[in-house]
Amino acid sequence: MSERDPLVIFTPSGRRGRVPAGTSVLEAARRLGVDLDSVCGGRGICSRCQITPAFGSFPKHGLTVAPDALSPWNEVEERYRARRGLPQGRRLGCQARILADAVIDVPPESQLHRQVVRKRAEAREIVLDPVIRLHFVEVAEPDLHHPSGDMERLAEALAAQWGLPRPRVPLRVLQRLQAALRRGEWKLTCAVRRTGPGDGAEIVEIWPGFHEGPLCGVAVDVGSTTIAGHLCDLVTGEVRASSGMMNPQIRFGEDLMSRVSYAMQNPGGAAEMTAAVRGALDGLIGALAAEAGVDRSAILELVAVGNPVMHHLLLGIDPVELGWAPFALATAGPLDLPAVEIGLDLHPGARLHMLPCIAGHVGADAAAVVLSEAPDRSEDLVLIVDVGTNAEIILGNRQRILACSSPTGPAFEGAQISAGQRAAPGAIERVEIDPQTREPRFRVIGCDLWSDAPGFAEATARTGITGICGSGIIEAIAEMRMAGIVDASGLIGSAEQTGTARCIPDGRTHAYVLHDGRPAGGPLIAITNADVRAIQMAKAALYAGARLLMDRMGVDRVDRIVLAGAFGAHISPRHALVLGMIPDCPVEKVTSAGNAAGTGARIALLNAAARAEIARVVRRIEKVETAVEPRFQEHFVAATALPHASDPFPSLAAIARLPDIAFNAGEGGDRPRRRRRA
Amino acid sequence: MSERDPLVIFTPSGRRGRVPAGTSVLEAARRLGVDLDSVCGGRGICSRCQITPAFGSFPKHGLTVAPDALSPWNEVEERYRARRGLPQGRRLGCQARILADAVIDVPPESQLHRQVVRKRAEAREIVLDPVIRLHFVEVAEPDLHHPSGDMERLAEALAAQWGLPRPRVPLRVLQRLQAALRRGEWKLTCAVRRTGPGDGAEIVEIWPGFHEGPLCGVAVDVGSTTIAGHLCDLVTGEVRASSGMMNPQIRFGEDLMSRVSYAMQNPGGAAEMTAAVRGALDGLIGALAAEAGVDRSAILELVAVGNPVMHHLLLGIDPVELGWAPFALATAGPLDLPAVEIGLDLHPGARLHMLPCIAGHVGADAAAVVLSEAPDRSEDLVLIVDVGTNAEIILGNRQRILACSSPTGPAFEGAQISAGQRAAPGAIERVEIDPQTREPRFRVIGCDLWSDAPGFAEATARTGITGICGSGIIEAIAEMRMAGIVDASGLIGSAEQTGTARCIPDGRTHAYVLHDGRPAGGPLIAITNADVRAIQMAKAALYAGARLLMDRMGVDRVDRIVLAGAFGAHISPRHALVLGMIPDCPVEKVTSAGNAAGTGARIALLNAAARAEIARVVRRIEKVETAVEPRFQEHFVAATALPHASDPFPSLAAIARLPDIAFNAGEGGDRPRRRRRA
Repeated sequence: MSERDPLVIFTPSGRRGRVPAGTSVLEAARRLGVDLDSVCGGRGICSRCQITPAFGSFPKHGLTVAPDALSPWNEVEERYRARRGLPQGRRLGCQARILADAVIDVPPESQLHRQVVRKRAEAREIVLDPVIRLHFVEVAEPDLHHPSGDMERLAEALAAQWGLPRPRVPLRVLQRLQAALRRGEWKLTCAVRRTGPGDGAEIVEIWPGFHEGPLCGVAVDVGSTTIAGHLCDLVTGEVRASSGMMNPQIRFGEDLMSRVSYAMQNPGGAAEMTAAVRGALDGLIGALAAEAGVDRSAILELVAVGNPVMHHLLLGIDPVELGWAPFALATAGPLDLPAVEIGLDLHPGARLHMLPCIAGHVGADAAAVVLSEAPDRSEDLVLIVDVGTNAEIILGNRQRILACSSPTGPAFEGAQISAGQRAAPGAIERVEIDPQTREPRFRVIGCDLWSDAPGFAEATARTGITGICGSGIIEAIAEMRMAGIVDASGLIGSAEQTGTARCIPDGRTHAYVLHDGRPAGGPLIAITNADVRAIQMAKAALYAGARLLMDRMGVDRVDRIVLAGAFGAHISPRHALVLGMIPDCPVEKVTSAGNAAGTGARIALLNAAARAEIARVVRRIEKVETAVEPRFQEHFVAATALPHASDPFPSLAAIARLPDIAFNAGEGGDRPRRRRRA
Repeated sequence: MSERDPLVIFTPSGRRGRVPAGTSVLEAARRLGVDLDSVCGGRGICSRCQITPAFGSFPKHGLTVAPDALSPWNEVEERYRARRGLPQGRRLGCQARILADAVIDVPPESQLHRQVVRKRAEAREIVLDPVIRLHFVEVAEPDLHHPSGDMERLAEALAAQWGLPRPRVPLRVLQRLQAALRRGEWKLTCAVRRTGPGDGAEIVEIWPGFHEGPLCGVAVDVGSTTIAGHLCDLVTGEVRASSGMMNPQIRFGEDLMSRVSYAMQNPGGAAEMTAAVRGALDGLIGALAAEAGVDRSAILELVAVGNPVMHHLLLGIDPVELGWAPFALATAGPLDLPAVEIGLDLHPGARLHMLPCIAGHVGADAAAVVLSEAPDRSEDLVLIVDVGTNAEIILGNRQRILACSSPTGPAFEGAQISAGQRAAPGAIERVEIDPQTREPRFRVIGCDLWSDAPGFAEATARTGITGICGSGIIEAIAEMRMAGIVDASGLIGSAEQTGTARCIPDGRTHAYVLHDGRPAGGPLIAITNADVRAIQMAKAALYAGARLLMDRMGVDRVDRIVLAGAFGAHISPRHALVLGMIPDCPVEKVTSAGNAAGTGARIALLNAAARAEIARVVRRIEKVETAVEPRFQEHFVAATALPHASDPFPSLAAIARLPDIAFNAGEGGDRPRRRRRA
């Protein structure tokens, strides 16, 4: 390169350098380390290297670009435009040659490592860099006088044209290689799997000639209650379908420990549950493929996360050891295995990657939350609470990360609540109670109106008002507390004490009627004292877990709180604080991350380096076992109290010291227990 | 270590050094790099570290060993002796501690890398170092406060106790790990597969507590006609069973090209042949396991070799491309795949290793011959001929190796010969003809007597005299030539010309009667002129291939000749020379290597490094394609002549120049042809 060579500046990267006149834009990008995609290797077939040249004066760069800075539009481009279309002003980077100083813009969709859009600004970015890529190659024909295998010449082509190491080739690919090469006239597209720059490569699939996809992957979060998945296009990074379904294992037990008990008490019970969850996952994948309009065989990669019990059951590992101390995992590390080994009907070469587990009660789902929320990159001390049947709690920042799980039980999901139900149309999800009149108003899922708005009855006529879901219960009890209907100990007052006829006798205690649908043939939806107690238990477990981590970290407060999990997405931070579910924190510092575990799985699907990264981070997470920490018990007992109505943002550290727990000691000790080894 | 520390000398290695008093013999061996086996890692369980201490005066070493140089016989040894027995004078190396200067002998069976005995002195030694080994480990129990997976603790134990890298663990092992660890009380034996010191490790199988085998492997040579296998103990290296069977593909065609034609002409034909050979191999393995008295699931490793067509068919690759120029292999490199992928019922984690192919006509069987006969280590220029339906020919030494294959056809195996049959009881295998009387005598397989010995008729009454096998035909024709019954052109004389009534008319030519069994209801066994012609064709093809390599090497003679193949084992070198099958060479320099391909497969089974070694050697072999070499045709035509009877060790280079080929030109040009692409 000399001073007379044209200067080329790429935007938005700003990379610049001189290349010999006549160099293609694609080649110039490669030499200057500019991220410009190509599947066909510069043969004018794939069009992934589209660029937009800029002309005129660029004072910032001290450069004027002449109209003939690039070679003229050529017939390859014309043919491509005629057949497939090309946006105005675009050129194919492999065809346009640099003749004079030039400024070239690389649009986002032409970047190999393009950034995948995420909805929340605070979350980590996803850079597309999947473990599987398509590579188009031209393979040398066999030579009688220099005999070598077709496979060896393909490997040479992949090395020379794509810089790949000698790949492993499964027998099913080798069996079809010779016919494919001849049918494609010695041109072939390979799907190559590679987990990292230093790792080996594997040819997962081959197609004669040029093939541009679809090439898909699925990320799933296998929860105790729900299995949720995204089908992603591994070429573009976009989510092409999202779906969820109930985990059919629920028939073996609502919560994790009852499923472990089922495995312990029934010969073959673990295998039954394994078959159930695998069947459901296979069905979900089928639904995702149908929604995306792709064949199941286009799915080449699967990433799954789940709590340790789900992790083990999906793998066909008996979860019995997770049922008693010391809660030993069969394996904690990340796993990478053929998807067919867990009975999934995908592409025959598809692999399943499972994120590492953190501990016997803190699973790969929590690891996925860490990957998504990245406390390891946070300057602030962040408390992340993934609320589900079990709560996983993570506390940390750049310096240090702690994790535990807390047995909240299923009350937060509406189970074991008298009028409770899962979040579905007809369920009460938002509640407000007027502190003066103590009259409630509410909203139900599937309707945007509040219950006191005109037209509400008509709008909900189809679904009815069927019950109350987790977030509705949280809000109802928090509002009841703020309205003085329930006291700090959790007792609901009588009609006389509260001055509202909505407080009705219920055995030896009272209940508060939110909605009486009986005149219209519907249910009576009331919050009973037992419901309040169930929520007290659950929130105390959650709170105690968080406090335990704060004790261990040596802090009294956290900088921010992230509520994760499908349920976390619907909790009102203000009500969570009022109820004392989470430690004291400015309400604006409490945010929701949605299904962060699912997002973490999607990150691991789309970015190979993220897998190694989360494995490294997980190894340095300090695990705290709540089951044997005496302080957990102390925090738990103290945290069953409900904060004062007079103080909507109380110091929970102070409240935790209040001794006024009203229900009797026997019940107070009735926290969800874990089984110990006999 | 100080000068006061005891000096220990190990024999036969001669390694010596000082170790602190109290060091176990096993530990001392490790420190001094002495090859002393141990599976249990020094826990007094496996007894593989048996040693024989020597006492008294050792002037050679300037040492006197006191009776109390080692710690006294202990109760672990006593328990082992009582239960399992221990030869007189032996100690367990892990129990006996060095207290003073000592001389310790390591018997061959206690060497980890013990040498496996081979029958022939000139062949390369086999050092036992298989890809799979047993390792006994003690695994740390789980700790509630430092959660980690059972698998991770096993990996740590394997690293600390055996220096192994973090192993891969298949799901089927992971699924059983937790129960096995608890049943074995945190002691476990692992079968670990590792292809080389720099390669990863895989846990193939686990057993609770201590497990000492059996741990077996099978080496097979898949020939066009015969499939032969050895079942070897991977712990001791010994052959526990050997067996062979017919390749059932014979029903699709006698020779390779007719099988390729079958695949070309019949849809699904290749798949049929694949199913046939896989089924036969599975049956052979079953027979081997039964003979050795082990379960099929004890077989963890399989090495297979075969010519390119067999190689491809076994793998389920359509061999069609091997049927026409440029004879492209699907893959030439070594392969390593799960044995279950080719439908074999072995241990579920068993793998199949296939040696590399050299070229489209020179397969993994030839590579195995090279591994066994090691021309790359030879100072002499050696010609190796593997005689089967096709002949593979290798010429080389340390500096350079050439290879080709030659289409000899099946005549050498008794096919296409009027009275020909496979080598089986009742077949004539040795022939002598008196040059004066022109009367023959012969021996048949299954009987040690010559046909003119008393008791021969009785001794062969059971089998009868049923035909003549390949080696018998070679000898018969060579003897006929030396007795003047057949002339240099290959014509059998009449009774008048030869003076023996054994020459009878046979159409327009004559035949020579070896044995007339018709009076007793048996067959007439005669050598016809067509038989002579078939053998002339076959031997000319073999000779021409060898000459072609010699031309390429620029030599007129070779230092020695090795005849390989099951047939090669039975050929008389003298007759082969007389017949002009092989280039001129002193008869004592012609040796037989038996089934060298099978031996090569066995070497690759028992020694991991040999696999990498042969892959390296194969890459530098220069391949010569006989099908397109004009000189092959010239050599072939010239070599159809039979040497002069008057000169039992003629110069074949001179004979090759003789023009007296008697049969007509049309037939003379009728050499086995290979199909070309249309």
